[in-house]
Amino acid sequence: MIGRLNHVAIAVPDLAAAAAQYRGTLGATVRDPQDEPDHGVTVVFIELPNTKIELLHPLGPDSPIRSFLDKNPSGGIHHICYEVEDILAARDRLKADGARVLGTGEPKIGAHGKPVLFLHPKDFNGCLVELEQV
Amino acid sequence: MIGRLNHVAIAVPDLAAAAAQYRGTLGATVRDPQDEPDHGVTVVFIELPNTKIELLHPLGPDSPIRSFLDKNPSGGIHHICYEVEDILAARDRLKADGARVLGTGEPKIGAHGKPVLFLHPKDFNGCLVELEQV
Repeated sequence: MIGRLNHVAIAVPDLAAAAAQYRGTLGATVRDPQDEPDHGVTVVFIELPNTKIELLHPLGPDSPIRSFLDKNPSGGIHHICYEVEDILAARDRLKADGARVLGTGEPKIGAHGKPVLFLHPKDFNGCLVELEQV
Repeated sequence: MIGRLNHVAIAVPDLAAAAAQYRGTLGATVRDPQDEPDHGVTVVFIELPNTKIELLHPLGPDSPIRSFLDKNPSGGIHHICYEVEDILAARDRLKADGARVLGTGEPKIGAHGKPVLFLHPKDFNGCLVELEQV
């Protein structure tokens, strides 16, 4: 069911410093920051040859990653995103197997403009898992 | 400098259950468990079309992931691994930029039989970063 690893998302306390480190010290291809007000984050994409890293920083007072950074002031890996072909079929299969879908259970449009869902970390080895329909 | 994302490593409290979930519920290609006594882990590789997930479980009393699971009993993302062409050149560039290399600073042979180094999480947004020469 799951396909490619679409991205690994890393919450960072200082977006400019993290972007500069990936561009400079690590020599990666780093895109310009994008504000995603619907998701409460500013995102910097790092393009690796086979996948992406998303650096996430809180945007606005209700950012969903604010509490994560409060608990992890140095930052940390926030979630991983797997691609699926049919997000509703994926959701129904997961729910039938007892996995919990976060929120309403209906896909939202994610930062890439495609339908996404998040799965409960306690059902997936402590990892917050995003599914993105591609 | 960094190339492909070689893998994302997830520490899991129950390796058989996690492997069964990736094989069954998530429908991924899951390999048989491999004991890596030199690294204190048993590993299950999940082969995605563009990268790998490594499920890690402690092997032996001195496993380096035992304390991680003590702190995170449900499991969690343990590290991410970037490929580099020349690990000694990468190390020297990182050290020159003030990043700390864990252990002796000399590459060890990793779970894939290739030279690896680990970088200090505090220098990389709270993420434990492995570099692997490919």
